[in-house]
Amino acid sequence: MRATMLHGPGDIRFEEVPDPTISKPTDAIVKVIASCICGSDLWGYRGDNGPQEQATTIGHECLGEVVAVGSDARNFKVGDTVIVPFDHCDNTCIHCLAGNQQACVNLGFTGSGQGEYTLVNQIDGSCVKIDPPSPEQLPSLLTLADVMATGWHAAVAAGVRPGGTAVVVGDGAVGLLGVLSAATMGAEKVIALSRHEPRQKVATAFGATHIVAERGEDATKAVMELTNGTGADAVLECVGTEQSMTTAFDVARPGATVGFVGVPHGVKLPVRRMFTHNIGLAGGMAPVRRYLPDLLARVQSGAINPGLVFDLALPLEQVAAGYTAMADRTAIKVQLTY
Amino acid sequence: MRATMLHGPGDIRFEEVPDPTISKPTDAIVKVIASCICGSDLWGYRGDNGPQEQATTIGHECLGEVVAVGSDARNFKVGDTVIVPFDHCDNTCIHCLAGNQQACVNLGFTGSGQGEYTLVNQIDGSCVKIDPPSPEQLPSLLTLADVMATGWHAAVAAGVRPGGTAVVVGDGAVGLLGVLSAATMGAEKVIALSRHEPRQKVATAFGATHIVAERGEDATKAVMELTNGTGADAVLECVGTEQSMTTAFDVARPGATVGFVGVPHGVKLPVRRMFTHNIGLAGGMAPVRRYLPDLLARVQSGAINPGLVFDLALPLEQVAAGYTAMADRTAIKVQLTY
Repeated sequence: MRATMLHGPGDIRFEEVPDPTISKPTDAIVKVIASCICGSDLWGYRGDNGPQEQATTIGHECLGEVVAVGSDARNFKVGDTVIVPFDHCDNTCIHCLAGNQQACVNLGFTGSGQGEYTLVNQIDGSCVKIDPPSPEQLPSLLTLADVMATGWHAAVAAGVRPGGTAVVVGDGAVGLLGVLSAATMGAEKVIALSRHEPRQKVATAFGATHIVAERGEDATKAVMELTNGTGADAVLECVGTEQSMTTAFDVARPGATVGFVGVPHGVKLPVRRMFTHNIGLAGGMAPVRRYLPDLLARVQSGAINPGLVFDLALPLEQVAAGYTAMADRTAIKVQLTY
Repeated sequence: MRATMLHGPGDIRFEEVPDPTISKPTDAIVKVIASCICGSDLWGYRGDNGPQEQATTIGHECLGEVVAVGSDARNFKVGDTVIVPFDHCDNTCIHCLAGNQQACVNLGFTGSGQGEYTLVNQIDGSCVKIDPPSPEQLPSLLTLADVMATGWHAAVAAGVRPGGTAVVVGDGAVGLLGVLSAATMGAEKVIALSRHEPRQKVATAFGATHIVAERGEDATKAVMELTNGTGADAVLECVGTEQSMTTAFDVARPGATVGFVGVPHGVKLPVRRMFTHNIGLAGGMAPVRRYLPDLLARVQSGAINPGLVFDLALPLEQVAAGYTAMADRTAIKVQLTY
């Protein structure tokens, strides 16, 4: 098959690679019909994950058609259209049953989502079947593989409640969908930190009631003014850097929780402030399968339209241009078409 | 008056100092009738808080009799016996009303609790009136000024639930009262990490169902065996060091919360593990006033007997010997008698 390979920093190639194969009876192979580029793909692309020993396939957000199933797959058959959570799970182990599918004892990950085919571990537990999607719903359904579920997880972890104030740190796709999540959960004030006009527009479309364009201490000051000096009831940290985390804790009111979903890179947590102000930290890698049925129903009913985060669509073959656009922040999120 | 002064590392003196005085109309002066030494007092005593510029009074856990009130004090009068939370609050501000009295906009602290008198800021919001205590109930009532409320806060922050498994890291007085709190809240398994036999006995008396004497990785292994490989539903971190925090996160099951109340010293949080396993951190400085009425009722009814943590009582004048005993870990917690 042809797939996207990361050879090293800045070196993305779409090229011929071996087909994925079933190795366990719970595996399946999915022919990808839509995929996209994740902000977390950029860490490796920028070389921020440390030295890379060998080229690897990349891409973990996709949906597609089942083309082969292992002998133990009972819920799916060849021809089914499925959403593939980036984190695969059996959905039956003690951690899955507690809603922690991200820690499944049979955890797996989509490895070649930006390719023509990808292996799904534990298809019975991981995937949810859908009708072949219309072109209109395809982008929103695609977000359910990761980015929408991750934004939702940030809001859940932060404890967003109806009538409260939520601050979203980060205006990438996850942050914007964090805005959508917080608004959907009924937060009265949803304050999005963003200084890029196109992203501000999406944030507003998703339900942001206030935009704060400042960064750092000025952002904190602005949020404090918007909250009458109290701080936010819930903070969604959707970046993963030291600066974003610092801002997240600075704008949180005492007793609040920072829900974090940005893969942390070099972050040192402000443990003293957490202690004196009783500001908690929760969240992490999203248990996509936990939220998938609910979010799917919301997309299918038209209640939410998370696909709006895609502002650029490129043919799969042009994936390298997609990485460039996202790394340069000229695109919020790139959909790859098949 | 005479009070305990910390002059520098290892240098505790009981000596004559100026009497505390009322400076704000919401202040009051309390004649101390019982006080004690806190594990957090030892940080300064050991010089672990950094250089100390000048000698200071010390001691923040006490109860006593009101001997003077400011002109705005309405709920208390001279002669009342009161429990004095270490963190003073107005109990009316936006943070207090949300249960975050530790972040009160009028926050104050007991400063000379190991003395004959102490100033209470915001007496109306801070204190709770009691009858003059019997000798039998005095120790338990004294714990409500800090240590019992702090152990309770760890359990609340960790999300201890009936039927669950709680691990308590730390066998100081706070940890032991964390055991009592977790057991009182209905945890089915309460696993205390302690390698000191006298403390193990107190832990068992407080409701620990299992004692783990190992430390570090061996402790983690032992907890994993006791939880069928799952890890704990709730972890109470009652020390505040890097090692105790690491153990706390290591024994937590995915999705669990570490409730921390040990003043953090040089702690770097395991943010990667927190992310991948979705293990949260919550808690911090206890909002004593929030829990005080409830805990007082439990003590008065005899439902809990937290005063068992005191295994040494010394006359106030011998406070320096009390510090030595606690620093050497020959005493769990020292009560000072008046």
